[in-house]
Amino acid sequence: MKKIAVSIGDINGIGPQIALEEHKNISQSCRPIYCVHPETLQNACEILGLHMPKNMEFAPPSTPVAPIYPARIDPNSGMYSYKSFIKAIELVENGLAQSLCTLPIHKKAWQLCNISEIGHTEVLAKRYDKDAIMVLGCKDLFVALFTDHIPLKAVSEKISQDKLVDFLFDLYRCARMKNALVLGVNPHCGDGGIMGNEDENIKSAIEQVNKTIGQEIFVGPVAPDTAFSPANRIKYHFFVSMYHDVGLAVLKALYFYESINVTLNIPIFRTSVDHGVAYDLAYQSSPNTQSYINAIALAIKKKFEN
Amino acid sequence: MKKIAVSIGDINGIGPQIALEEHKNISQSCRPIYCVHPETLQNACEILGLHMPKNMEFAPPSTPVAPIYPARIDPNSGMYSYKSFIKAIELVENGLAQSLCTLPIHKKAWQLCNISEIGHTEVLAKRYDKDAIMVLGCKDLFVALFTDHIPLKAVSEKISQDKLVDFLFDLYRCARMKNALVLGVNPHCGDGGIMGNEDENIKSAIEQVNKTIGQEIFVGPVAPDTAFSPANRIKYHFFVSMYHDVGLAVLKALYFYESINVTLNIPIFRTSVDHGVAYDLAYQSSPNTQSYINAIALAIKKKFEN
Repeated sequence: MKKIAVSIGDINGIGPQIALEEHKNISQSCRPIYCVHPETLQNACEILGLHMPKNMEFAPPSTPVAPIYPARIDPNSGMYSYKSFIKAIELVENGLAQSLCTLPIHKKAWQLCNISEIGHTEVLAKRYDKDAIMVLGCKDLFVALFTDHIPLKAVSEKISQDKLVDFLFDLYRCARMKNALVLGVNPHCGDGGIMGNEDENIKSAIEQVNKTIGQEIFVGPVAPDTAFSPANRIKYHFFVSMYHDVGLAVLKALYFYESINVTLNIPIFRTSVDHGVAYDLAYQSSPNTQSYINAIALAIKKKFEN
Repeated sequence: MKKIAVSIGDINGIGPQIALEEHKNISQSCRPIYCVHPETLQNACEILGLHMPKNMEFAPPSTPVAPIYPARIDPNSGMYSYKSFIKAIELVENGLAQSLCTLPIHKKAWQLCNISEIGHTEVLAKRYDKDAIMVLGCKDLFVALFTDHIPLKAVSEKISQDKLVDFLFDLYRCARMKNALVLGVNPHCGDGGIMGNEDENIKSAIEQVNKTIGQEIFVGPVAPDTAFSPANRIKYHFFVSMYHDVGLAVLKALYFYESINVTLNIPIFRTSVDHGVAYDLAYQSSPNTQSYINAIALAIKKKFEN
């Protein structure tokens, strides 16, 4: 069975509970290695009133055990989640696990303990000096993001033909989708130039990439507001969004619990749950674990369906 | 029965067919007055192989009859659709109709005949010197747009507390919704300032407006990507989006055929279909008419459900 390195995420959030509750289930199809101290999970079990599952394998992070303070934004839990993530990366890099599945961190907690990267994806991009690609979704609908955690006003200036060509090539090389619908950036794709010309760059990039691949893999750009129409979602399961929210708002409206997060274009294969730490639920009620189950499944399979 | 002024839209698109096919149906609940020459609809009937419906009432625009060229972007059809729209506005202004329902125009055709406004909403805003508010949706989900047909890069600079306060007040005065969820502008609402501070302006504006109204009408800002989660859509049927696409992409993914467009904060009540001219279908196959039926229904009722 494949070994999957699991980083525990922010221990004050729902990560530990998800790992505990699904251990037996996911152990049917893989060997999870948890990057957390057993004492920490024992602590979580006590708060939650759970029995510690048997046969858990641990690779604790190189940092002291941090106490759990349910739902608290805390620099110690921030640093612990960061070190757990780094440990999980190292397991994959050293061949001790085949891929990596991450539980959610709290971005503000990372900032409080002076971690310079905003989140997981940025750490991976920096570590490997690669333009890591964020893809989120589930088998019916995957959305790849050309830009992710940047202010909305900074999006348009990133839309150059060269950068898009590189991105689309990398995406295709990693995902090997049979086709993908590419969203424009301005309303109605700029309405023929009335609202900006960025969409012309997208069009040129698509043409260039398709020509080189020798197939019409990428289609578009299409007006962002109608991109996810029911008819388009029958024809396409893979979409490319120029920025974070227009693609993800649709994904999370349609597939809130099933969605996962995948990082492409880096040397390791990393999947993640597609939700945050949910402090409103943490150590109080049962979180939905479907995203974690799906993230583990893709970490095992390491490829998209087509 | 209430009289509804119907502007015919771009005659090379699907507008005339929709009007012809639904005339009998909508005449059960209102008296439609079509702002088109009867010869033009007769011409459409000939191309479509339809019989001209009986008992249609006409108020033709003050412009020569234009020939129909199916699916052609044409300055003559652009001018004809503009004049039809102006005629329909005048009917309502003069008390000859209670409200106005518009069929789709082609924005490029308007530009080709040197009309300076981008579309219907902009004409109304200029005519009445008011900040016209675009609301799109159906009874399960309405989305009001703080900005609409502007480039994506121009959105953030519009997010000032004063402007938002005016907008939210106007919206509440016109729509009288019992509550509304307000989306932020940056990913994750800026993650506590990591990705910009515009969302702080939104928060302050919401607090100011709620305080003055004396009720928690507006809630937010919430991260745009999770705003439309299934749980939120049970709690809220009215959403406020800072820009065109993040709200409308979700609306059109979920309610593609039912959605309509309403213009608020102007002296007349105007509804519209929520789709374009569909040149790919025009005079070739039967368009879905549900949006038109719903737009006529709201034009008759002139108020939102709560």
